[in-house]
Order: sequence, then structure tokens, then C-alpha cells
Amino acid sequence: MEIKVGLLGYGTVGSGVAKILTLEGELLKEKIGRPLKLQAAAVRNLDAERAFPPPPGILTTDPYKIAGNPEIQVVVELMGGIEPARSLILRALESGQHVVTANKALLAEKGDEIFQAARKSGRELAFEAAVAGAVPVIRTLKEGLAANRVQSVFGILNGTTNYILSAMTQDGTSYGEALAAAQRLGYAEADPTFDVEGLDAAHKLVLLTALAYGTLPKVEDVHAEGITGLEPTDFAFARELGYVIKLLATAALSPEDGGVEARLHPAMIPRGHLLAGVSGAMNAVMIRGHASGDIFLSGAGAGMMPTASAVVGDIVDVARTGKNGSSPFRPSLGWHSLKAGGVRDVLETRTAHYVRFSVSDRPGVLSAISGAFGRHGISIARVIQKGRDPKSGAVTLVLLTHRAMERDIRKALEETAAFEALTAPAKRIRVEELSLPE
Amino acid sequence: MEIKVGLLGYGTVGSGVAKILTLEGELLKEKIGRPLKLQAAAVRNLDAERAFPPPPGILTTDPYKIAGNPEIQVVVELMGGIEPARSLILRALESGQHVVTANKALLAEKGDEIFQAARKSGRELAFEAAVAGAVPVIRTLKEGLAANRVQSVFGILNGTTNYILSAMTQDGTSYGEALAAAQRLGYAEADPTFDVEGLDAAHKLVLLTALAYGTLPKVEDVHAEGITGLEPTDFAFARELGYVIKLLATAALSPEDGGVEARLHPAMIPRGHLLAGVSGAMNAVMIRGHASGDIFLSGAGAGMMPTASAVVGDIVDVARTGKNGSSPFRPSLGWHSLKAGGVRDVLETRTAHYVRFSVSDRPGVLSAISGAFGRHGISIARVIQKGRDPKSGAVTLVLLTHRAMERDIRKALEETAAFEALTAPAKRIRVEELSLPE
Repeated sequence: MEIKVGLLGYGTVGSGVAKILTLEGELLKEKIGRPLKLQAAAVRNLDAERAFPPPPGILTTDPYKIAGNPEIQVVVELMGGIEPARSLILRALESGQHVVTANKALLAEKGDEIFQAARKSGRELAFEAAVAGAVPVIRTLKEGLAANRVQSVFGILNGTTNYILSAMTQDGTSYGEALAAAQRLGYAEADPTFDVEGLDAAHKLVLLTALAYGTLPKVEDVHAEGITGLEPTDFAFARELGYVIKLLATAALSPEDGGVEARLHPAMIPRGHLLAGVSGAMNAVMIRGHASGDIFLSGAGAGMMPTASAVVGDIVDVARTGKNGSSPFRPSLGWHSLKAGGVRDVLETRTAHYVRFSVSDRPGVLSAISGAFGRHGISIARVIQKGRDPKSGAVTLVLLTHRAMERDIRKALEETAAFEALTAPAKRIRVEELSLPE
Repeated sequence: MEIKVGLLGYGTVGSGVAKILTLEGELLKEKIGRPLKLQAAAVRNLDAERAFPPPPGILTTDPYKIAGNPEIQVVVELMGGIEPARSLILRALESGQHVVTANKALLAEKGDEIFQAARKSGRELAFEAAVAGAVPVIRTLKEGLAANRVQSVFGILNGTTNYILSAMTQDGTSYGEALAAAQRLGYAEADPTFDVEGLDAAHKLVLLTALAYGTLPKVEDVHAEGITGLEPTDFAFARELGYVIKLLATAALSPEDGGVEARLHPAMIPRGHLLAGVSGAMNAVMIRGHASGDIFLSGAGAGMMPTASAVVGDIVDVARTGKNGSSPFRPSLGWHSLKAGGVRDVLETRTAHYVRFSVSDRPGVLSAISGAFGRHGISIARVIQKGRDPKSGAVTLVLLTHRAMERDIRKALEETAAFEALTAPAKRIRVEELSLPE
């Protein structure tokens, strides 16, 4: 008997899902052992234009004709946002339906409730498309690396910001120019805040932290910095120092004491590393397992068909394992043992740093700055001083520090901020070597 | 109740598997819902030294105390080679045991028989460790990309050859020097034939072809060239042309007519591509799905713990899904619908080419060579001519061709081989742009 699928939402990704379900029916049937049928799709506006025309008669404006309908076995939530997506997913799980969703905001904000509902219902909750689109990150963390203690997960999780940073790296353009180009090409929204301030990537980071460490942090506890403050000068210095600047999401056990860290911020990473080669709107994740070593995954993190690929991959999985599928339910690895839990305060995390000062060209400045760093226990690995800028008369001074506690870096920066010799606020960017721990 | 695991073989990988099963018992129990127990391990020599000492009382010299023993639910075959591995796996499947294996040679040579036995038994046959070690390539092809028609799979599947090629690229050393260094560092065997002639990678390519296209080619039908003929000059030209030379495995649908191609040979690939950044003994695979776009996976392709990571990942999967596990059997995607089938004759495959000629410096040589290519329908994209070598008096002439049929390239090379002006046999290396099809 066929397995019936209902879509909540039929926008870009919904169109892609409908396209695959409609055009690849034979392929999917062969993989599942039974046909999949796209039974219904709930939308707000019946007459909107769609990238793939819905099969006749499937549209409805009442999502509760799908969520809670016992004739539909798999509910695919593609509306985004918190409500009504949350209520509909809870209703579906309570009614014994399996749920596939791409909704990272909902899972990151309300994961406790949703994961618990899935556990209670004994139904599958699949969300490969919520992180890095078509890249099988969730599956790899849950299954492929099941034998590993995860030491760290580094990710490039937002295509918009990676597009902008790639342009700034390759063409030396300003943030504003790169953003405008990204907007022209459809890689950035008219209001890009959600992407460029790091909120989208922070949601995904919450989910990766949950899968890697069994603890679901609150979004507001995850330190998230965006890319709006980055300047072309810093990209030039990065190149000179052998680095590339990426918006890097990190979920990791502190090498010092094993605490769980989750933070998102621009970072200089070594130019020769695979993550540095992830350009344009691509996403990537590097997972370090205690046995596997570094596993690197990359691909399209968004877009109609790549996201639909991940969603339909989940539908196939659920259909094969669900109680109405060819074999009984197999609960997901990973989130079923999720504990509520926090992550370390960012003040207590350690990284190396790049710090750029603009100072007036007078004796003793380097000594004063390095003195302030020394007083806070930060040791300096490298100094670059550039000749006087003929226009401003300022001198650029770049320090690379060894790994230091965030709290100490902030104190040192506060102290130096009061120096009269500073002609502009210091810029700092974390440095992540990504090398295997000694 | 605990799930009992038996190992066939307790060498390097077996030691790694035993180490994870012994030291990570709590982690594995949490993921499976029940404890795993390493019940027995069959070895040839009870007294050999092992990288991880076996728990007391588990060693036996009789593998049939494991294969066919109803008290053991999961049989892990790590002996390698065809016999007795083949008979033991068949015995295990017939007896209702699940099988995990890392044995690419066996699956590639005897896959028809083994896969059929698994199908018949309704038991799981898992082999993530057989290709690219800890990198979840099999899982991604089977599950993550289940919604996709696979257009191509490009892979760097052998760590030894990638180590040698990386050294030749970075240091400009000869093949012999790089091989000697790889042997000193343990990346190459004393007799490196199996790796450097491409046999190991060809076995893995057979398995990737089976998973991508549902057809299991015979190993001898897969065109396999090794790396022993590569010269430093060609690495220098590759750099000049913006390429890197890799031993590239390709399973792909011909863009011209949709036939399945499977071939392994050195190839020049664009220096900026992620695959070009895979250095040292790493492995990588790039899978192009019709919906997903390019998915790139990389990591350690061999070694005790990375391979054990993949093996134990499979054990967890089997233990969770097996009939004695926490939920019933779920047959693997991919091979269950495998059809016997062939791949296209290499003479009928198309790629672009780099061809290097050494010729005496006399008029008309370029015209004669390019004439021969033209007569066989091969169009030339670029020519580089280097000034006369003061020692030999020879001139180096490099042609880059557009995509051309292998049969035609061979005819053109045969024809030019007869030219008196040639001072050495021509060298040719395929060129693979790896770009998305237009």
C-alpha cells in the first residue's frame, strides 16, 4: 500500500519536494518498496504562483487536514517560523504521524518540547534539511560517527555570509559592496539581518551541539557574532598571514577541561585547510571524532532542489522505517537521549586572536599595548607593524596572540581602548588553526 | 539483553574495533539501547602481539565458532582476501547472523553471490569501512541521497597513491623518491603494487558504481591505470595549467548518452577544487545528485581507528535494526535492488586530455601532430611549446584537447607514435574539469 505524504507549506522548498515526489516516483518506490503519494499540501493562498505546479486537487488552506489526519503517514513541515509550525508538528506527533521538517528556528527555539513529543509518540522526527541543506551532516553525526566521542564540530553554516566573505576575500571589496552584489544575485535578502548577524547560523549551531553532545543549549546562550564589522584591511592581513576569514560555527569540548562550547563568530582559518576552500554560497562541516579523525562534508546549504533532496531523503528514511512502512519504527539516534543543558559562557572560552590597532606614530606605543596584553596573561605570538599611512599619519599594528581566555582578551582590549595613541577602535578576529590537538 | 559480536580476524582494524567496543561501552549502550558484548574473535595465531590486547578468553582459532554460532548476532569480518572470508560470511548469513565487513576485494569480486545471500537471508550486510574508511560514503549514497539520480561519483580512494602524488606535487620529487618516502613512513607496503597499480581503488570503485547505479561491474571490466608512469615534468605542467594530478576514480553516467562509466586513472583536476585540496593519505568522494548538486566528503581512508570507527558505526546500525536489536530489521537501501550489469568499454568513454610530446626541433612537427589529432576528430583547446632543451635538443610540446572519445585519442597517439620527430613516447593524462554540466 502506498505511503501518503502531506506538505505543510508549498513555497520554494515545497515545490522542490513535490517535484521529486512527482517525477521520481519509480526511483523512490524501488528504494522504499512501496509507492509514496503526495496526498495534500496546505497553503495560505490557493492561487499563488509555484515553482512546480501542484498536482491537481492536493491544495488546502486548512493545515489540520494534514496534521492529525490518520490517512496521512508522513507530515512534512516547510512553513518555517515558530507558529503555527510548532502546534502542527505537535499535533502530527500526537496523532501518530511521522514528521520531517527543515525548520531550524523552531527546533532550536522549541527543541525541548518537540523532541520530547517525538520521544513520547514513538514517531520519527527527521530534520536533515535543517542544517547545511543537502549535506548529510545530521545523518553523519547520528549514525556514521556513532562509535565516536565527538571532539569538535566546525561549520560554515550560512551561504549568504559565506558568499559575502568569499567576495571580500577574492575581490578585496568592502562589506557593503559584497552585500549589494549578494542581494543582486539573490544570495541575500533585502533585509539581510537574520543572515549577516549570525542568527540563522546560530540556530543551526544549536542543533549540531545537541547532536554532538546530547545537550540542547538555548539560542540566547550561544555566543553569536555576525560579519558586518569586517573590513577589507583585515582580509588583506589574513592573506598575508596565510589565513582566510570565514563565519565559523564551533561546537567543541574545551581541550582544557572538557566543557561544551558553542560559539559563532568570524574566524581566521589556515588558507590550506579544506574549510578555507569552501567558497560562494556553499556550506561545510568538519567533525572531529576520537576514532574517525576529521570528517569533512560540504555542498549546497540552501536552494530549492538541494533542500528538497534532504527533505525527500528523510521521507524515504521515515517511510522505510515508519510503522506504516516496509519495516517497523527505528528511533533516531542522537536526540532521543537529549538532556537539557547549557554551554560554557563565552567569557570562559579560549582561542587565539588577531588584533589590529591603528595608532599614532610615537615611541612606546607597542610597549604599552603589549604590556596591557601581558598584564592579562595573554602571550603574543607575532607582531606586524606597517609603515605610516601618509594620509592619516597612523601606523597599523597587528598582534597575533596565543590561545587566551575570552575574558582576558576583553580586559586587555578595554585597557588599550583607553590609550590616547589609538586613532581608531581596535579590531579583533579570532584565529582557529583547526589542527588536530597534540 | 546484550547483543553479542564476534570478530573474524584481530589484526590492526580488529584491535581498533575491540578497543572501541571495550572502552566506549557506555556510549554505545546509550545509542543502541542495549549493551554490545565482544564475545569472541577468531585468529590464526593465539599468541601474536596485538595493538589492543583482547579481553581474556575471547580468542579462538576456529572461525566457525563465530560464523554459524546462534549465540552471536553480529559477525564482523576483518580477515580480508577471498577465502575463507567468503565462506564464513555466507555461513553467517545463512545462519541468520548480521554481517559487517571491511572487505572491498571480496565484495567487488564476489558481490553477486554475497549480496544475493544477504537478500535471501533477510539479514543486514554493512560495509561502510570498505570504501574511504571513516568517511560515510556508503551511507550517503544509500540513504542521504536516496532522493537523487546520481550523475557522477568522483573519488580519491587510495591513501598510498594520494600520499605519493601529494609529495610529487608539493616537492617536485620523482615517483621513485616519493614512493620510497611513503614506504619509510608506513604509507606504502614493501610491495606497493596493489595500491600504485590501482587495484585497491578499482575494488572500491566497483562498490561505488554498484551503489550509485545498481549495477555491479566485474573488476576486470573497470578500466584501471596506476600512477607509476607519472613524471615530475607533468606535475610542473599541471601547475602551470592550473591543475593538480590525482588518481581519480570515476563512476558516472555519460553526459552524451546516459551509459554507466567506471574508470580509474590519473587525472588533472582544477587546482581550486575541493578534491585538489585533499592531500597526504586522505580519501575523498564527490557525489553529484540531480537534486542535491555536488556533495563532497573527505577524511581518513585507512588506519586502525578511522576504519574501526566505520566498522563500529555499522555494528551500531545493525544492532539497532537487527532482528535481535531494539527494533526489527530494515534492509539496506542500494544493493537490495542490485542488477548484474556491465559498464561501458573504456574505448567509448570521453574526457579531455593533456598530451606531452618531446620532438626534435624542426619545421612542420606541430602541424603534423595537430593534423593527426584533427584526422581523428579531436579538437585542440590549447598548445604550449617550450624552447629547446640545451642538453637533448628536444622541444616539449603540450596539447590540451577538448573532450574526445578514448578510441580516437588512442588512434591519434598511435599515428603520432610513428613520427620520426618524436624523441620519446608521448605522455597523456586525462583532464577532468569537475564542473557542473551546462
